[in-house]
Amino acid sequence: MRVPISEVTPETERAEVMGWVHEIRDLGGLTFFLIRDRTGIVQTTVVKKKASEAVLQAAKDVSRESVVRVAGPVKAIAKAPGGREITPETFEIVSPCATPLPLDVVEKVPADLDTRLDARFLDVRKPRVAAIFKIRSTVTTATYEFLSQRGFYNIATPKVVAAATEGGTELFPIAYFEKEAFLNQSPQLYKQMMMAGGFEKVFEVGPIFRAEEHNTVRHLNEATSIDVEVSFADDRDVMVLLEDLVAHMYATVADRCADALTDLGVELEVPKTPFPRLPYAEAIEIAAARIDEPIKYGDDLSTAAEKAIGEEMGQHYFITDWPTAIKPYYAMPYEDDPSICKAFDMMHPRMELSSGAQRIHQHDLLVEQIKAKGLSPESFEFYLRPFKYGMPPHAGWGMGMERLIMTMLGLKNIREAVLFPRDRHRVVP
Amino acid sequence: MRVPISEVTPETERAEVMGWVHEIRDLGGLTFFLIRDRTGIVQTTVVKKKASEAVLQAAKDVSRESVVRVAGPVKAIAKAPGGREITPETFEIVSPCATPLPLDVVEKVPADLDTRLDARFLDVRKPRVAAIFKIRSTVTTATYEFLSQRGFYNIATPKVVAAATEGGTELFPIAYFEKEAFLNQSPQLYKQMMMAGGFEKVFEVGPIFRAEEHNTVRHLNEATSIDVEVSFADDRDVMVLLEDLVAHMYATVADRCADALTDLGVELEVPKTPFPRLPYAEAIEIAAARIDEPIKYGDDLSTAAEKAIGEEMGQHYFITDWPTAIKPYYAMPYEDDPSICKAFDMMHPRMELSSGAQRIHQHDLLVEQIKAKGLSPESFEFYLRPFKYGMPPHAGWGMGMERLIMTMLGLKNIREAVLFPRDRHRVVP
Repeated sequence: MRVPISEVTPETERAEVMGWVHEIRDLGGLTFFLIRDRTGIVQTTVVKKKASEAVLQAAKDVSRESVVRVAGPVKAIAKAPGGREITPETFEIVSPCATPLPLDVVEKVPADLDTRLDARFLDVRKPRVAAIFKIRSTVTTATYEFLSQRGFYNIATPKVVAAATEGGTELFPIAYFEKEAFLNQSPQLYKQMMMAGGFEKVFEVGPIFRAEEHNTVRHLNEATSIDVEVSFADDRDVMVLLEDLVAHMYATVADRCADALTDLGVELEVPKTPFPRLPYAEAIEIAAARIDEPIKYGDDLSTAAEKAIGEEMGQHYFITDWPTAIKPYYAMPYEDDPSICKAFDMMHPRMELSSGAQRIHQHDLLVEQIKAKGLSPESFEFYLRPFKYGMPPHAGWGMGMERLIMTMLGLKNIREAVLFPRDRHRVVP
Repeated sequence: MRVPISEVTPETERAEVMGWVHEIRDLGGLTFFLIRDRTGIVQTTVVKKKASEAVLQAAKDVSRESVVRVAGPVKAIAKAPGGREITPETFEIVSPCATPLPLDVVEKVPADLDTRLDARFLDVRKPRVAAIFKIRSTVTTATYEFLSQRGFYNIATPKVVAAATEGGTELFPIAYFEKEAFLNQSPQLYKQMMMAGGFEKVFEVGPIFRAEEHNTVRHLNEATSIDVEVSFADDRDVMVLLEDLVAHMYATVADRCADALTDLGVELEVPKTPFPRLPYAEAIEIAAARIDEPIKYGDDLSTAAEKAIGEEMGQHYFITDWPTAIKPYYAMPYEDDPSICKAFDMMHPRMELSSGAQRIHQHDLLVEQIKAKGLSPESFEFYLRPFKYGMPPHAGWGMGMERLIMTMLGLKNIREAVLFPRDRHRVVP
């Protein structure tokens, strides 16, 4: 009966494990093997004079990264990983590994990211890489736990849609039988419709698709978005929810992923809440004082501006009170000054993680804003309809999963936070 | 400070609620309003002689399904829903509802499914419809809980892919920059690659896309799949996992969704495990004895055959030991009789819910099987590569979320289990 390697201790009498041959050291009379599974590494030593014919043959034939089954008595050995090793009465090659490896799993030879992504199945065998996805899995589970406990329903909205969310052109077209359709950029319109549907608190963790042409270290064409929408709530309410969720994600990872963080060499600091609220006008002043390129009130924040403001803030923070002109049509303008709106971005010092707003819930005001953006209300008919039939006030946000993981773990390229990234040039594997 | 309606009890002193005007009964001197939010319904009575000018005006203007804010003292009234009502010191129209309604939310006038789906935001206001999605949300959360507790990592695999999973033609093409790409039919190949990656236990709850032309009450072109893959496991192991998960889903819904089940009029019986294992050969015999159309060993199970076998079994069950010829190339043939394979379907008496198998992990055997299906190994190169480099034995399954919900709740049409279904003719809303 196979056990996970982490369950084999110096006190274990006998054990059977299955895993990958992580390292082989042949000293002539004896050969050391390190066997790795998802839970850890164990040593097994084949001694020429003592081993059976079958064990010797397998030990001779086996290549690194082959899958093997090893079984036998366990003895405590101080110098071995975990202080124990298995004496191999059984040493069986379950699934051989071809040589040479396209990628070195023990990372003695560094590989560039493209090579790694081409052989992702080998790349993720590295404990340091696997750690990223263990943490990402924990963050997703923590999101479900946190929001479910607060009464949120998770929803699944369509990815095949007939219209653009923001009216933009950054859409991938699909041949959908006789119709034209697109991959959805965001669940925005659908989660808002669920507010009209009376669901009150919804979330979705799912894929979004953006046909953006730029190919940078922080953009993906297919990404995972955590989307939240809340009725009878304003921007301030959902900002509190957002910062609490981010702090909860960090705390959960710190609690459940100690080994993975060690593998990555990351000392995680749970961000303190509340995050500072920085009005857009002040953010622009900070940027203007710190960067060379010209920037003025009304401009979007460039990468350089974000970086400069992030350096000044030094922690997660919100930028609030944005000019209505540079936020999407569905952001609610302030009543006393409609030139600014109840939209916010949640920032990590390195980059934007989330955008949100109190939404416009009044049909006529929404039509006005759609027109003000140069868009046509006719193409939003399916979306506008619910606003005529009792749309409650509501607010929400969307947060990029990969950017969250990237900034949490200090990754250089957003592709490191995705198993099989999709970008301008990559759809394989 | 607004409270959820379910928190207003006969003992509450004062309350402020927000919700939709569910019903209006005007008796001349006094008007009864039922106000509905996600948690329940509360009565408020406007008495002409006692109410303020503002309250009277709002009560006169308001239409059904408008959003209102009502605040005032609460008194116990035996005949009112929940045994209490709010005396409206405040009665404010927050968001008006146009008339006539395209759909009757109190269901006095039945609507056909197309009308309902066109105005889905109103349709889901019906407590009976909302109940379906509350239960679906609970099933998803229960899946994350169950599998996370058993050490599974959740993964996110790409939906934009370069090749078909099964080599079939039922794919939606995407214009992906200069390349051709497709919407993924299944995470099958990707979760298998993660087995090569050493993740050992993974799951994904996510969208799948099938360009099937048939338009039936149990097919969708965009659906949600629960996918699981386990290393060092065989078909028998993952069948136990699957039946345990299904029983857990039912038990969790029974435990957490009592009100929703009442709204639906469903008495949920948690299926007993283990589910019976019925070899394919016996299933064919049952079908042959019970249906008129000709059926013989080697045939796929028609809808009529599934129905006949389901009637005989009368509960969830597995069909095992399928002919290799009618299962996908990746199903593991029995060593002693390669004409049958370690594949299974998990069935509800009404229909198939899940398919799974121990997978082939040997590179050369897999190439053979791909060829035997008339497919070209060249077009699976990215998938075949991991099998050369230490692919562990593994098994898994995929289960359709909508079919699970449909059979659990006795829904007639699978579209009832999806907020915004996508079928042959529908991509809007």
